[in-house]
Formats: sequence, structure tokens, C-alpha cells
Amino acid sequence: MTEVKVLLFDVFGTLVDWHGSIAREVHGVLGAQGIEVDGAAFATAWRDQYQPAMEEVRSGRLPFSKLDVLHRRNLDVVLKDFGLDRVDEATRRHLNHAWHRLEAWPDVTPGLSRLRLKYRLAPCSNGNISLMADLARRNDWHWDAITGAELARDYKPKAIVYLTAAAAFDCAPQEAMMVAAHSSDLAAAAAAGLRTAFIARPDEHGPGIGETEASVPVDLSAASLLALADRLGCR
Amino acid sequence: MTEVKVLLFDVFGTLVDWHGSIAREVHGVLGAQGIEVDGAAFATAWRDQYQPAMEEVRSGRLPFSKLDVLHRRNLDVVLKDFGLDRVDEATRRHLNHAWHRLEAWPDVTPGLSRLRLKYRLAPCSNGNISLMADLARRNDWHWDAITGAELARDYKPKAIVYLTAAAAFDCAPQEAMMVAAHSSDLAAAAAAGLRTAFIARPDEHGPGIGETEASVPVDLSAASLLALADRLGCR
Repeated sequence: MTEVKVLLFDVFGTLVDWHGSIAREVHGVLGAQGIEVDGAAFATAWRDQYQPAMEEVRSGRLPFSKLDVLHRRNLDVVLKDFGLDRVDEATRRHLNHAWHRLEAWPDVTPGLSRLRLKYRLAPCSNGNISLMADLARRNDWHWDAITGAELARDYKPKAIVYLTAAAAFDCAPQEAMMVAAHSSDLAAAAAAGLRTAFIARPDEHGPGIGETEASVPVDLSAASLLALADRLGCR
Repeated sequence: MTEVKVLLFDVFGTLVDWHGSIAREVHGVLGAQGIEVDGAAFATAWRDQYQPAMEEVRSGRLPFSKLDVLHRRNLDVVLKDFGLDRVDEATRRHLNHAWHRLEAWPDVTPGLSRLRLKYRLAPCSNGNISLMADLARRNDWHWDAITGAELARDYKPKAIVYLTAAAAFDCAPQEAMMVAAHSSDLAAAAAAGLRTAFIARPDEHGPGIGETEASVPVDLSAASLLALADRLGCR
């Protein structure tokens, strides 16, 4: 692995507990308005709209739009599906911004600190730059740059997103390693020529609902970013 | 200034002493090969090629190319002009990378640390992402994101570069403040709707050769980033 120069990170699920964070926010924010809602079910339903919304952009039917815009459109759909059309505009805006306030898994902040000692680090997420910057502030991460969908103006798993991220660091694809908790993300990164590391997040979609091991060939697998740092000799 | 959310920084001249750094590198690297050269004159000549090269992109005659690529083309021109065609390829590559090793003015690292307490911070430079990331590592800066030419795929002073940087932080133009040592940069930022802060760098192009005050209207002027932090209440 000596020629890997930059580690590129998937964020939703890999670095942050989007399901738990969104479930808590939705339950809390709507609960304070006297609206009882199953936060976990709402989080899952919101996320279920994620891939179809991005596919509109990937297919060329929609010009590139930041994920915040897609999230908001999806939120309106889910509120309607949950019979919550009465939720007001200010609350919708606040809820949409919950994606900027996601909590990291406990190993992530200390893991990134160690990985930073030997590698350039950047998110390569479908989240927009401001969302990534807010998550970094909240969770005390120090990125070298923010790469991903907004830089490439397209969405993963299209190859251009991974290749644009590697090129931003003047790296050939094989000098960049994609780190993710999703086999589909890693399969696409590998097809684009990148190295890959799988991180197990068995509770990503709620307790016991997440990938425990990669279903595709990867260069490395680890149970956490701290374990990845050990494997990569970052102490 | 309470509505300013992000500070965008020019880098060459404003944050780093490109002239002194390049002069030292050129003198040292070529000197070690027995080639005597006036480093300061060489640095000035190299920089003189900067605007014409970017104009090729701004005008649409050349597709967007990273500044590293333009710098390299310009280096070859200047070496020829200095009668140094004999300089080998490895040395040219090393010299071109000198732009990734520029030294910050002494106030910059502590100034950015203080400004970070209240504002999102990003470079909005014509330098490419890897160049910005390398300067940040070298000088211990912590950016929220790297904006600028590579994100906008065009060069300052075109409005799209400033507007893309503000939009990356979900800011209206007036919520972003451009910080620069060059009146031309600030005039263009102001024309795009941004706030502006002038930093005096009287020695930018060598001792006594630099702007001591803005020649255009600006929102703030300061003698250093520490003075700017004072003015903006970042203690």
C-alpha cells in the first residue's frame, strides 16, 4: 500500500450514523410540536428516496443539484407519505439541515487524526460541500480538501466522481483508496481503478441492519477507522 | 459585518511570500547544479507569465487547465529566456512544485486560527486544489473547504470563481468576504457582490514592492490577518 497517497471517504453510514441521528432529530423536532412520529421509520423512508433522486441527475434528466436540494424534495415527499403535510416551512428547513448535524461513529474522529499522519484525507461523498464542512466542524475532522459530487458535478457511483477526487490530489486512480461501508460504492471505485477499504457498519440502518462484510473484492477490510489506521501503520 | 459567514482568501501574495520563496528555491536548486541565477529576477519573470497564461483559459481559447500546468508551461518559457535550456526534466518538475512549498507571512497561521473561531474559512485562489492542500499542510492551516479556480473551472477575476465559492457555503454573495492584498481581486469580488477586506503586503514582489493600501473602495483594510481578526472580533 506504499503508493497510496490519499484516502477518500464515503460519509453517510461510513463516518456518521445518519439513521440514528435523523431518527432522533425527526422524533424530537416534530415531537416538540405535538406530532408523534416513528423517527427510525421516517429516517429509513427519507433515505429510500436518496438513490432515485440522484438517478435523475446521473441520467441527465435533471441538471446537477446539490444533495441539500434533493434531500428537501425528498423530505416533502416523505412528509406527505406520513400524512404530515401540515409541517410548516421553517420546520422543513430545519429538518433538512439535520443532515448537516449528523453524529460520527465513535472511532471516526480519533481514526481520522491518526490516518492524517500518513495520508491526505478527503470526503468523497454525494453530500454537498457545505454539508461536509458542517459535519467536519461538528465532529472535529480536519480534511485536506472536500471532494465528491459537488466538485465532479455528478453523483456516485459514476466513475467521474472518484476520478475527479483522485485528480484533485494529482493522483493516479491507484494512488487513491476509497474507504466505505458499502460494497456498491467500493465496486464502483475499484472499477474506476482506485484501491478500496471496507469498514463494517453493522448498525447503519438501525440495530443489526448494515453490511458486516464486503460482498465484492476489496484491498482491505476493517472493523473501524482505528483498525484501518493500525493496518496502514498510522500510530 | 454580522451577516458575513465565510471568509475567502486570496493566497499568492496575501497569505504566502511567493516572491521570496520562489527566489530562494530557484537560487538554491539551480545553484546546487552550478548554475548561477538571480532568483528574485527569475521569480518576477515567472510570475509575469501568470496573467497571460490564465487569460488563455478565461478567454475560452484553452480548456480549463490546473495552475500547475500553466506554471510549468511558463517555467519552460522563463528558463529559455534566461538562457537555461539545459535544465533537465527532473529539475523542472521539482522547481514547478516550489509553488506547493511557499512560506506563509508570519501573521497568517495565527491569524487564520483566530478567524476560524467565528467564520468558515476557504482559499479562493487561482491555485489548484493539491497546491492549496500542500500549502495548508506546510503552514498548518485548517480550511473548511478548498474553493477557487479548480472548483469553478475558470480563473479569477471572473465573477464565476467568487460566486461558486460563496455558493459552496450556501452563502449569498454579500455573506462572503474576499480577503486579498490586491485591489484588482477585491474590485472583481465587490462587483460580484461580495464584501471585501484588503491586507497590506508591501513586500509582495520583493522589498518595498507591493500594495500598501487599496486603490478601490473596500469594506475593511488591515495590516495583517491578526489585525483583521481584531477588527472582526475574533480573539
